[in-house]
Amino acid sequence: MSYQERLDRLYDRLADVRLGAMALIPGPSLFYISGLSFHLMERPVIALLSRDAEPIMVVPELERDKAETSPIEFRLFSYSEEEGAALEALYQGVTGLALEGSHIGIEPLRMRFHELNLLQVAVPRATFVSSDGAISALRIQKDPSELAAMQRAAEIAEAALEETLSLIKVGMTELELASELTMQLLRAGSEPEFPFSPIVASGPNAALPHSVPSDRALAEGDSLVLDWGAVQQGYVSDITRTFFVSEAPDELSQVHEIVQQANAAGRAAAQPGATCGSVDLAARSEIERAGYGEYFMHRTGHGIGLEAHEPPFIREGEDTVLKPGMTFTVEPGVYLSGRGGVRVEDDVAVTEDGSMSLTTLPREARIVA
Amino acid sequence: MSYQERLDRLYDRLADVRLGAMALIPGPSLFYISGLSFHLMERPVIALLSRDAEPIMVVPELERDKAETSPIEFRLFSYSEEEGAALEALYQGVTGLALEGSHIGIEPLRMRFHELNLLQVAVPRATFVSSDGAISALRIQKDPSELAAMQRAAEIAEAALEETLSLIKVGMTELELASELTMQLLRAGSEPEFPFSPIVASGPNAALPHSVPSDRALAEGDSLVLDWGAVQQGYVSDITRTFFVSEAPDELSQVHEIVQQANAAGRAAAQPGATCGSVDLAARSEIERAGYGEYFMHRTGHGIGLEAHEPPFIREGEDTVLKPGMTFTVEPGVYLSGRGGVRVEDDVAVTEDGSMSLTTLPREARIVA
Repeated sequence: MSYQERLDRLYDRLADVRLGAMALIPGPSLFYISGLSFHLMERPVIALLSRDAEPIMVVPELERDKAETSPIEFRLFSYSEEEGAALEALYQGVTGLALEGSHIGIEPLRMRFHELNLLQVAVPRATFVSSDGAISALRIQKDPSELAAMQRAAEIAEAALEETLSLIKVGMTELELASELTMQLLRAGSEPEFPFSPIVASGPNAALPHSVPSDRALAEGDSLVLDWGAVQQGYVSDITRTFFVSEAPDELSQVHEIVQQANAAGRAAAQPGATCGSVDLAARSEIERAGYGEYFMHRTGHGIGLEAHEPPFIREGEDTVLKPGMTFTVEPGVYLSGRGGVRVEDDVAVTEDGSMSLTTLPREARIVA
Repeated sequence: MSYQERLDRLYDRLADVRLGAMALIPGPSLFYISGLSFHLMERPVIALLSRDAEPIMVVPELERDKAETSPIEFRLFSYSEEEGAALEALYQGVTGLALEGSHIGIEPLRMRFHELNLLQVAVPRATFVSSDGAISALRIQKDPSELAAMQRAAEIAEAALEETLSLIKVGMTELELASELTMQLLRAGSEPEFPFSPIVASGPNAALPHSVPSDRALAEGDSLVLDWGAVQQGYVSDITRTFFVSEAPDELSQVHEIVQQANAAGRAAAQPGATCGSVDLAARSEIERAGYGEYFMHRTGHGIGLEAHEPPFIREGEDTVLKPGMTFTVEPGVYLSGRGGVRVEDDVAVTEDGSMSLTTLPREARIVA
């Protein structure tokens, strides 16, 4: 789909939800619509996409050349380093957009007080409406070129892991292993802007779903949770496998079997027409049936695409209906405080008649070091 | 300085600016105060630091264990994956804080509409005040342990560059070179959470101050701007050097001399008691005197620390007075559209009686490949 088609579809969406315009700051949605990526820093960048006028963008002078490369023809209002220059540029930008009195959508998970405040000053009689649906309704179904980028991001992540596995040794720290995996991701072709750094969680740290790599050294009998991903054309992969260091303790081995079954059940439940909640239930039931339900305390998965976490969310009771092109993780886990944990995560894409896993690395527990 | 001292000093600051509390979401300021780093995702994490009560933190259930590791004893209110659970936890958290009617500070460059909205619902009669000064006034002067981390981050960045230089070849793409530099940063000991990815800008791309690495292949006679940094204990370095590929064209060589002089003049002007504006002027005057003033269209520098860009800002007319422990970049540049560019950037720390450069890599133009 061309950028112009995306913009046209956004305008249709805005009409549906009775918004006159959408205000975006740097991030995945602005990239999706414009092809432009900026770092979100102290100098504001604001795009205003108005149904009844040309799209405008306010940018610092030194980003003007970049903004001109967008396939969408923005009217650009650039500003110098002087105090107040950004607001002045925004005033000029909104002149002629006829936004007074209209409803302007903002993305609540992205819009900062900084830019919202400038917008409120520049268009005091507009109403700013939290709208996380207007653009994510477009982004949630990936087109073939997006799926191809995600497939490639998965392949890169898997190739990087295979290179890393042979280097794992008892006594290596989590941080050393995380650095090695990151290097291998780059060597395998990932773009350097990772959406998240690899999680390397060993032994008791593996019982923390969001553990940060530490100075802890890998020890025999550890469960070792690796959760990593690559980036390709801005699209991410996000995969988890659980290993055992030198030997596999009995209970954690059993837990691995159960989690692997839950992962398979979740993937099998992913079909067009099914709800997100039913996918969560399919995975969760396997773990509950085995008596570990209380140790699986997070949702089964989350959408992925230009972001590592985006709609749809695969959680209890979520009634979003799956459609072809939706992409999300299936990542059940069991976490035994103080002892260790197991998680097995794949990236699933819904197809016309079922689903496929973009990640295909063996899911069985492997012994390393 | 201990985390408790930082918190006590924040409370003093809040009293000075008549704020009853400060609300923080994941990011550098929360890390500075609590030692905790979280990814900023869709599940809200909110800390409320109230002068008259214990600090509280609202966290998703699966982040609770991490939050408990903070040296600051937060009262934790964790929430499940159910719809509305975060708001419920926030309601419970604010009970007993007596925040109704009070002024609560937020960081405009960090606070999102998402969390602000929850706060406004949970404490409807509080006034939320944009306050970028309350915490940055503390963070702006680094203590010895912070400076040591920054020194180490500079050393890692420089070691990584030296390893990378010998690998540069004509025909290599900017993206390949950026990946190599990133790998060397990790190998040299950088933490993997980079504040920004290396900029590799060659030939005409070097004329764009914020160029993103592309598929462009390095060619003879290119100016090659490398702008990269490392992270150590959360603290960053940020350094730029400009090289020439195989041979140095006459005008760009001359421009390099001028920019190098401007960099030296800026660093020399950095003294306790001087204003930020005077440092900008010192660097800028060198370039203006040489007739290239209009091609240096950005400020001379920005503060660095836990963020790649933070106060103080080294820009025209900025009257912030330099004090010992302040750290910032001095990075004059000249950009000749279509032909190339030169930038030379160092990280400067103000001392009791002058300043020192944390980055010491040779500044002269070097020929590579």
